Amino acid sequence: MMQWEPAVDSSSSGFIPRVVLELASNTKEEAAAWLLSRIRDPQRNGGAELLVEQLGPGVGAQEKDNPNLFLVGASWPRLLSGAEDVGLFKEYSDGSMRGFTCANKHNFKHFKGEGDGFLSMSECQYIIKHELDTLRAKEETHVPGYTQAKLYPGKSIIRRLQSKGILIQMFPLHDKEDLKRLSFSWYKKVKLSLQPLDEIKHYYGEGQALYFGFLEYFTFALVPMAFIGVPYYLFDWEDYDKYVVFAVFNMIWCTVILELWKRRSASLAYHWGTLSRKKAFEEPRPGFHGVLGFNPVTGREEPLYPNVKRQLRIYLVSLPFVLLCLYFSLYIMMIYFLMEGWALSVHDENPTFWTGLLLFIPSIIYAVVIEVMNLIYRYAAEFLTDWENHRLESSFQNHLVLKVLVFNFFNCFASLFYIAFIMQDMALLRHSLATLLITSQILNQIMEAFLPYWLQRRRNKKMVRKVLKRRIFEDKVLPLPEQVRLEADMSMYLGTFDDYLELFLLFGYVSLFSCVYPLAAVLVVLNNITEVYSDAFKMCHVFKRPFADPAANIGVWQLAFEAMSVIAVVTNCALIGMSPQVKGYFPDSETQLILWTVAIEHGLLAFKFILTFLIPDVPKYIQIKLARLEFESLEALKKKRQLHEGKWRLQRSVRRSSEADMKAYRH
Amino acid sequence: MMQWEPAVDSSSSGFIPRVVLELASNTKEEAAAWLLSRIRDPQRNGGAELLVEQLGPGVGAQEKDNPNLFLVGASWPRLLSGAEDVGLFKEYSDGSMRGFTCANKHNFKHFKGEGDGFLSMSECQYIIKHELDTLRAKEETHVPGYTQAKLYPGKSIIRRLQSKGILIQMFPLHDKEDLKRLSFSWYKKVKLSLQPLDEIKHYYGEGQALYFGFLEYFTFALVPMAFIGVPYYLFDWEDYDKYVVFAVFNMIWCTVILELWKRRSASLAYHWGTLSRKKAFEEPRPGFHGVLGFNPVTGREEPLYPNVKRQLRIYLVSLPFVLLCLYFSLYIMMIYFLMEGWALSVHDENPTFWTGLLLFIPSIIYAVVIEVMNLIYRYAAEFLTDWENHRLESSFQNHLVLKVLVFNFFNCFASLFYIAFIMQDMALLRHSLATLLITSQILNQIMEAFLPYWLQRRRNKKMVRKVLKRRIFEDKVLPLPEQVRLEADMSMYLGTFDDYLELFLLFGYVSLFSCVYPLAAVLVVLNNITEVYSDAFKMCHVFKRPFADPAANIGVWQLAFEAMSVIAVVTNCALIGMSPQVKGYFPDSETQLILWTVAIEHGLLAFKFILTFLIPDVPKYIQIKLARLEFESLEALKKKRQLHEGKWRLQRSVRRSSEADMKAYRH
Repeated sequence: MMQWEPAVDSSSSGFIPRVVLELASNTKEEAAAWLLSRIRDPQRNGGAELLVEQLGPGVGAQEKDNPNLFLVGASWPRLLSGAEDVGLFKEYSDGSMRGFTCANKHNFKHFKGEGDGFLSMSECQYIIKHELDTLRAKEETHVPGYTQAKLYPGKSIIRRLQSKGILIQMFPLHDKEDLKRLSFSWYKKVKLSLQPLDEIKHYYGEGQALYFGFLEYFTFALVPMAFIGVPYYLFDWEDYDKYVVFAVFNMIWCTVILELWKRRSASLAYHWGTLSRKKAFEEPRPGFHGVLGFNPVTGREEPLYPNVKRQLRIYLVSLPFVLLCLYFSLYIMMIYFLMEGWALSVHDENPTFWTGLLLFIPSIIYAVVIEVMNLIYRYAAEFLTDWENHRLESSFQNHLVLKVLVFNFFNCFASLFYIAFIMQDMALLRHSLATLLITSQILNQIMEAFLPYWLQRRRNKKMVRKVLKRRIFEDKVLPLPEQVRLEADMSMYLGTFDDYLELFLLFGYVSLFSCVYPLAAVLVVLNNITEVYSDAFKMCHVFKRPFADPAANIGVWQLAFEAMSVIAVVTNCALIGMSPQVKGYFPDSETQLILWTVAIEHGLLAFKFILTFLIPDVPKYIQIKLARLEFESLEALKKKRQLHEGKWRLQRSVRRSSEADMKAYRH
Repeated sequence: MMQWEPAVDSSSSGFIPRVVLELASNTKEEAAAWLLSRIRDPQRNGGAELLVEQLGPGVGAQEKDNPNLFLVGASWPRLLSGAEDVGLFKEYSDGSMRGFTCANKHNFKHFKGEGDGFLSMSECQYIIKHELDTLRAKEETHVPGYTQAKLYPGKSIIRRLQSKGILIQMFPLHDKEDLKRLSFSWYKKVKLSLQPLDEIKHYYGEGQALYFGFLEYFTFALVPMAFIGVPYYLFDWEDYDKYVVFAVFNMIWCTVILELWKRRSASLAYHWGTLSRKKAFEEPRPGFHGVLGFNPVTGREEPLYPNVKRQLRIYLVSLPFVLLCLYFSLYIMMIYFLMEGWALSVHDENPTFWTGLLLFIPSIIYAVVIEVMNLIYRYAAEFLTDWENHRLESSFQNHLVLKVLVFNFFNCFASLFYIAFIMQDMALLRHSLATLLITSQILNQIMEAFLPYWLQRRRNKKMVRKVLKRRIFEDKVLPLPEQVRLEADMSMYLGTFDDYLELFLLFGYVSLFSCVYPLAAVLVVLNNITEVYSDAFKMCHVFKRPFADPAANIGVWQLAFEAMSVIAVVTNCALIGMSPQVKGYFPDSETQLILWTVAIEHGLLAFKFILTFLIPDVPKYIQIKLARLEFESLEALKKKRQLHEGKWRLQRSVRRSSEADMKAYRH
């Protein structure tokens, strides 16, 4: 086991561990020593100027425990200057949100003394992550002790260590006290109030908080639809003209709620300081590789990969692969319909309770198969997108989301489209919709929350038992080394991707076909309520704490939801056009009926786009605040310039008068 | 006649007159004197620090001449600091475009000595206009001599003088030498080269240059369509399957050229420095009125007008008015069809050459009526939009464009839609399209260029004759006072609105129905070529020089053209679906035909949106340049901060050591 002497300045009592670095247990000593010294070096020497300590072995130390766990922290002044580096926005004394600057720190609200407590834990962790990520190689040609881990001036050290497997993981620590408080107000007390979004933001950062905000908003937005849907179910309203009313309401509702969400999101992001915050310059992602060259933007040496090659990979490999998968999914769907037909024929021949149950079997099997296919495809998509070798994480994410979205949409809804528009069997559509929706919800809850929870609980108990063997605690709180090791073993939270994807599919079930199954909204509302609790629980107890993600909106998902709402207009119009009531208006000519349906659909789409245009994306009061900020900075600039010019003029006149003096003296 | 003593510092030989201010001839002396002193006052006293001289009476002075013409200029240092104020972007020594700052002036390309000639005439004029516009009242409660012309601290003086009719006009002077050179390279020499866009930008500013760039681009984009269209006309290809090919080509073409124009526009705007230039803070427009209150953004006292009132005016008055006009336009259209039917019946009864000509009469009359209605509606729309009392000129313009666009679109195309989709008479559609297109082109050229030219020529000759009466010139160049008076009498150029509107309608004729009349593209190309010449000519010789307009793109027109291209997809699909060839594929079922048409139309629309998404709006090389600039400024900021912190640390350590000295001294 290696042992590092604690650094001189980090042994002070003020050291608060915030981020954990885990190096491989067989890391060479020289590499670890070099990394620590680079992290501790002052900034003027190109270091990160952070505090770092090795984690002690703890009470339950075993031989197999990895000794190379390091705790990283920073002094308050260092964190404040880091906050300025990452462009953090904080509340100013006048209530507006402004970019934090050290020079101006005392004018910010809640800034006291040296700034202790001014930054939240998640902000501190984000700053430390940023500083570690931007710690760059100087003259080193490789990581000491690892000649194959090449470095060049300007290369991010952490990225290289990650890509070579020397750095296993870097994660922020949970804060037991805060977590307890958060989880109590979030999901432990039975309450009618909303989620504590500000506290979630405080603990997990803006990206997570926006997801939970969206989940909550989406649930509330569905409540009116659910309320209207219940009587349809209860009174068994089978007449289609009531469904027409429901569908029209549905279409307008979809558009309006998505527009209003933009405003709500802007308002949340403004108060959290991410709305006008500039994105930091993005580092290449760890897996990115290529021939060394000069980045045309930064002028730094870094791997370059020609865009043409990437495009070729996308259009010649990824695109055909996705199309093949879609074809395969269609094939599975046809098998499902064969099974469905077989079950029906069995039931018709000999209708008993058991054959009645048999009717549900194909749908349930199909729902399970869909989930499995989605899962497999997800891995394939990740592999392919990784192989496309995107330089930036954001571009990687966009391509991954697009691939997964298209397939999942197709996989989940193809059978419904087939039933609705080819078979035109509304009873079967209702039946399939219900089975798919309910089965996928149940599967999701199991896969997402209960399974990881159960695994984590086992691990947790083991650790507690191990510690209990040695000592007896009064308050069952684990000591730091055990806590860190426990968290290091927790599963990694993979971002909000899957959560948004689930909401996206639920939104599809509600909006696309709800006019034949108004109860869908009720089911989705119920699902969302349990989803809030299970997501909250898994965030707090199942996963490692994730780094904050300073998001200003829900990004590409807003677009995906809007695309879904456009498709919903088309499907709902078609369903209405196919309803017997509407057909009754055009008894003679089917052509007339279709033309009218298409005309109305075009009108609704145009109306939708105009509505999107008319509703401003940012609420007026925030627009005014942003405009005022910009106006003030312009005015300040102008004043500064005039002051500067005034000084210059003064100097010139002084010089002139002294020249005149000189002349007078000479004469 | 009043006479002002020339200001001391403006009588120097370096005074170059750039902008003319014309006050009403009965302006009270105290008001004029006050205005001049405010313009001359140094900036630290709240003045504009510009040079201003009264224009002399000239040789052909008459009693009725207005003596209150003032020439405004500025020293080079004043212009440079103004360039920084308006946020001008100029070419840096490394070839990138950067915001000009006086502190950094020597690093800009083409900057020599004190900066003479660094700014173009149009830039100087724009700066002077900006400085005059932002000349604000201090403690004055009203304009001296005019108690009804109220002022309050912060009110723009020029805006108040304009709205009270004391300031008649403010316009930039032409530069005869430059103009001669520009007009020679622009339209006087017979050439195959492109328009000198950079010179146009240099002389007229970015807004004008972008219009001419768009006109040129649009013409070139139509050339392939025109080439394909000619054989259709020559060989009289009446079979519709060739038209189907043409229509599909047409749809994809429309989408692609509009996307590529965005790239071209971004590239032009980058090189002209307007792409990343921030919009200056917008002053309320001169006609805006309301109750005095505090602007929530600037905190200044200014008239406020509640948004609710404006919305009420828009939705309760303007919208019904527009709908009424649309109804009226429909009514006129029905009369046209009655006339058309009557002419046909006369021709059928007694087919002679004269009755053959009679067939064209209704279309020609209708085309003329359409133009007249557009003209009348235009005035009504301007009146209404003015009455809606928009605070900003940009908002005023957007509402005006929307009103005029909807009506003109309806007015010009309603009859064609009626013929195509209700009457389904393709021969009549072709005939009407041709007549409308040709008549409106001829009318436009007359109204737009020849009429104003003829008027201006008469005025010009009169002035030359008047001057010639008194003196004999060797080179027929008018002296300054006559030149200024001549320009003051020229018509005002009302912006690119009408020019874009004309292009928009032409684009409609080409894209909406071109698959039944492929010759339309040829006609439009020919029209555009003459349009370049006539527009160039009228810019140079008919109108007052306009102030430069630092536009970064063609603004709302891009949106209008894109909307048109979406409508074009719908109409072309419908036309194709109605063609006998396509009908031949579905001999049994019209329903099948319509469903397929609608499905293909939806597919094309989706493809169009994806294409819009896939083609980046800004060319890669400009994206890189912009990213580099941002990266450099971030790096500079970081370096500055570290330097600052280094200093601070040094100071602290110095302080500490001196404290230690003190302690040592005490002991």
